[in-house]
Amino acid sequence: MNRDELIFQIKSKRSFLCIGLDSDIQKIPNHLLKLEDPLFEFNKQIIDATKDLCVAYKPNIAFYEYLGESGWRSLKKTIDYIPKEIFTIADAKRGDIGNTSNIYARTFFENMSFDSVTVSPYMGADSVIPFLEFKDKWAIILALTSNKGSFNFQRIEAKGGKFFFEHIIKISKDWGTDQNLMYVVGATRVEQLSEIRAIIPNHFLLVPGVGFQGGDLHEVSKFGMNSDCGLLVNSSRGIIYAGNGVDFAEKAKIEAQKLQYEMSVILSKFGV
Amino acid sequence: MNRDELIFQIKSKRSFLCIGLDSDIQKIPNHLLKLEDPLFEFNKQIIDATKDLCVAYKPNIAFYEYLGESGWRSLKKTIDYIPKEIFTIADAKRGDIGNTSNIYARTFFENMSFDSVTVSPYMGADSVIPFLEFKDKWAIILALTSNKGSFNFQRIEAKGGKFFFEHIIKISKDWGTDQNLMYVVGATRVEQLSEIRAIIPNHFLLVPGVGFQGGDLHEVSKFGMNSDCGLLVNSSRGIIYAGNGVDFAEKAKIEAQKLQYEMSVILSKFGV
Repeated sequence: MNRDELIFQIKSKRSFLCIGLDSDIQKIPNHLLKLEDPLFEFNKQIIDATKDLCVAYKPNIAFYEYLGESGWRSLKKTIDYIPKEIFTIADAKRGDIGNTSNIYARTFFENMSFDSVTVSPYMGADSVIPFLEFKDKWAIILALTSNKGSFNFQRIEAKGGKFFFEHIIKISKDWGTDQNLMYVVGATRVEQLSEIRAIIPNHFLLVPGVGFQGGDLHEVSKFGMNSDCGLLVNSSRGIIYAGNGVDFAEKAKIEAQKLQYEMSVILSKFGV
Repeated sequence: MNRDELIFQIKSKRSFLCIGLDSDIQKIPNHLLKLEDPLFEFNKQIIDATKDLCVAYKPNIAFYEYLGESGWRSLKKTIDYIPKEIFTIADAKRGDIGNTSNIYARTFFENMSFDSVTVSPYMGADSVIPFLEFKDKWAIILALTSNKGSFNFQRIEAKGGKFFFEHIIKISKDWGTDQNLMYVVGATRVEQLSEIRAIIPNHFLLVPGVGFQGGDLHEVSKFGMNSDCGLLVNSSRGIIYAGNGVDFAEKAKIEAQKLQYEMSVILSKFGV
């Protein structure tokens, strides 16, 4: 999916919601466990209930990998089931030397038709660039994450007195363009969003941490939104585990609706 | 596997060789492709031919993941086939927020009985610590990698005027002990090995980059070996793709023998 298509979707759905499919076999409703493919059945019902309210789905690969062969089957069926006009993110946080990153990219982009993969920047240019060599596919680089551990390294001072994550953004933005690169910026770090926008005014930011991790949607938008929206705000557990009975998808829909409504108000306020 | 068992293996085999099972369906010998599970058959023959010469096997997860369901089946069969006294490394470079890292750890340690997983440090303590909570299992943290991109971030100046990778080692060494933490240090960066040894004299280092990537075994040993050896030196392509015919495993064995012989000389020289 290219940038224009993503922006068109945001404007027409009045939403910049990404739903995280952190679909955990130990947390999904009991009644699904007797079905042949519980994880896919869970995702299918979540997708059916929320596809008009969100612009992206982000399966967290760990939960599929945990189930081995059957997990990969569920993941493949899920990605094939998601309507093509919705942006898809393989939340895999991959990154390795060039030839290995190329294999990861082909796995997620070609074998599974994801639109994007989250990547760790630590190994540098040749670990990320292989993800940027596919038409209309995206690498989403970890910049500032929403967990406590982000204080260990991302927020220490690097060369020039700036935070290390800023150095990462400054260097890596030239590996691609705002047409194939996005950045992960945790919602619990809104105070840094304006500084990030000063470096990359146009890039899309993938913002996890709204909901269970304590991030605030209005604050994120105030400091992070640009004229094309420029934000994909993710909620995982707050939506997909809103209910635990046979009506779990309906409950998920209600939570997604609340966020979509807030987002529609924010988009109008910012003239997007 | 615990540290004593690993050291015992090194001393009795007179080897600190790790063989990287970067088993690529597009590179393995043609005659294997008609078999039911080519990747496992390739690994099985490599393992049969080299198991007395190496102390560790390191499957590169990318190549298995690329094949989806069947790749995970090949990986599982491979890890089950490796003799239990040989150390196993899932070269996966994972790292995510705590609950997700825990899932990755359970995948590789419990579902697949790997002894260790390579992890990316960028997200900090809570992304690595979940890998340290399993008895006799190890996290192997990326410190200084052997690729060009290591100059982008790992080798920039951080707080205190030291390289960023040194800061990572200094902080992260306290998350675990030399009984459950190792570090990746590329063989192409021998000049930094003494500085690393000043910070972590006892930890094992996993050293990729010998062979195709240009690293030198004697230089690595000179600056990196400690009284318990403290090194696992990896070779992947130089061994597993030494031949491409029906005798590929025999060719691999010859390359592994060369390295094991060099290593036995080095171990004796250093009194290990």
